Amino acid sequence: MIKAAIVGYGNIGKSVLEAISAAADFELVGVVRRNPANVPAELAGMQLASDIADLSVRPDVAILCTPTRSVPDFAKHCLELGINTVDSYDIHSSIWDLKCTIDPIAKAHKAVSVHSAGWDPGSDSIVRALMLAAAPKGITYTNFGPGMSMGHTVAVKAVEGVRKALSVTIPLGTSIHRRMVYVEVEKGYSFDEIAKKVKQDPYFVHDETHVIEVADVDALLDMGHGVNMVRKGVSGSTQNQLFEFNMKINNPALTAQILVGAARASLKQAPGAYTMIEIPLIDLLYGDREALIRQLV
Amino acid sequence: MIKAAIVGYGNIGKSVLEAISAAADFELVGVVRRNPANVPAELAGMQLASDIADLSVRPDVAILCTPTRSVPDFAKHCLELGINTVDSYDIHSSIWDLKCTIDPIAKAHKAVSVHSAGWDPGSDSIVRALMLAAAPKGITYTNFGPGMSMGHTVAVKAVEGVRKALSVTIPLGTSIHRRMVYVEVEKGYSFDEIAKKVKQDPYFVHDETHVIEVADVDALLDMGHGVNMVRKGVSGSTQNQLFEFNMKINNPALTAQILVGAARASLKQAPGAYTMIEIPLIDLLYGDREALIRQLV
Repeated sequence: MIKAAIVGYGNIGKSVLEAISAAADFELVGVVRRNPANVPAELAGMQLASDIADLSVRPDVAILCTPTRSVPDFAKHCLELGINTVDSYDIHSSIWDLKCTIDPIAKAHKAVSVHSAGWDPGSDSIVRALMLAAAPKGITYTNFGPGMSMGHTVAVKAVEGVRKALSVTIPLGTSIHRRMVYVEVEKGYSFDEIAKKVKQDPYFVHDETHVIEVADVDALLDMGHGVNMVRKGVSGSTQNQLFEFNMKINNPALTAQILVGAARASLKQAPGAYTMIEIPLIDLLYGDREALIRQLV
Repeated sequence: MIKAAIVGYGNIGKSVLEAISAAADFELVGVVRRNPANVPAELAGMQLASDIADLSVRPDVAILCTPTRSVPDFAKHCLELGINTVDSYDIHSSIWDLKCTIDPIAKAHKAVSVHSAGWDPGSDSIVRALMLAAAPKGITYTNFGPGMSMGHTVAVKAVEGVRKALSVTIPLGTSIHRRMVYVEVEKGYSFDEIAKKVKQDPYFVHDETHVIEVADVDALLDMGHGVNMVRKGVSGSTQNQLFEFNMKINNPALTAQILVGAARASLKQAPGAYTMIEIPLIDLLYGDREALIRQLV
């Protein structure tokens, strides 16, 4: 059995709990959260701690479900204890830097970190790599949604006068997206001012953005999301090779499932830091190697 | 530069030549074919041999483009010379056995074999593994076509009285296929008898099969093919996760491109035999590791 700990217990952490429960080869040895006295019903009987080092059973792997900006610190801490880590770190422009930071720490402590293992980055990265391998020349478009963007929603919430917010990503094709932003406005604030600030925010300034005032943001919330990836390219000297990948999914559930697969894979890699395109896919999977190859290949 | 040899020079071999010519990191050091005196225009100036051991420059990797049943013997011969091999061996039920046969030979000679590296098995195997990782419970359907099935076409050609044949695979969904068989009939043979024999052949007996007599099979030939793969499954405890992969491609060109990627990857693996789900995807790709990770992850 793979001994896993969940670090951070929000939407992703809860879904990781479900994915671990559904996995025949995993055992949850504890949950790490800021306030370990906060014990929701589904964690009754589970060991909670504010530091992974305090868990009575040492985990093989820590599944980091913290906000993405905290991932580097938590990863460093776990790896220094010799505990493997997986995360869904999603700041695309910093993924390489994260790898460079984490890799020597992992190696020094004979541990493995699989990072950026959600759906984008994560499963989508695998699809992009496969499409590039299949047609080295061409353009791949990743079209997200319709679905809630966590990052954009947080950016809207940071605008003064916004009580609650939701930013939905609408795919317009060729990697162009529309942002549909729904806000509840605090009393005494101007919706027009808020709308203007949202549209000027770096998260929104380059996209077609519509801001809409609503009475109840909660009534609009839906964790479903999706992606459409297309590539038209050249294999050898043959033009017009066409590839498409579509996914309609519950976002935290998929992220959690990929994280659990990455946690399994972490136990099969040599020490170091890995993105999803650097590990063999079979290592993500539960089951007998012969049976998997017979079924999948 | 990776020194490659092409072994077998039919449709796939020709496309591998094109894929190697388009790859910045490959150099073709020779073509192995039964009759090396047969030199088509595009091979002018290239060294041809009937045995890979006779090439004046020793290849790092042999790309096997022979009929699938000859793959094990050619792979064994090359590996015993310490030359890596890649192939698109496609008898699904025997892939595991091929791996078990080849793996110890590769290890004994410090060589690598990447086998079953076409599109199915091959790139489709990667998609099936990814879909299983993303949703461990559920059903994946692989729907082929419309496109020419090599195996089925060969089976029809083997029926007495068939001058030329083409078997086209039509996807009906949920992995069910219709076979559209076009035949030219030799003088003196009964079309009805031929149609009956085709429908009774093990290749066709389980599928809806239509046999049609035509005057000119060549006029129908098109190397385009396609696949539609769908999975509806469960991530953690979340039902109804939906995945789809579509591809419309020139068949030999895609197979060749995957083979060339696998040849590149063969140089980065420890000795042994590998299917496509056992190697990191990044190893298939040409280019700087940092640039690839920045672009794809």
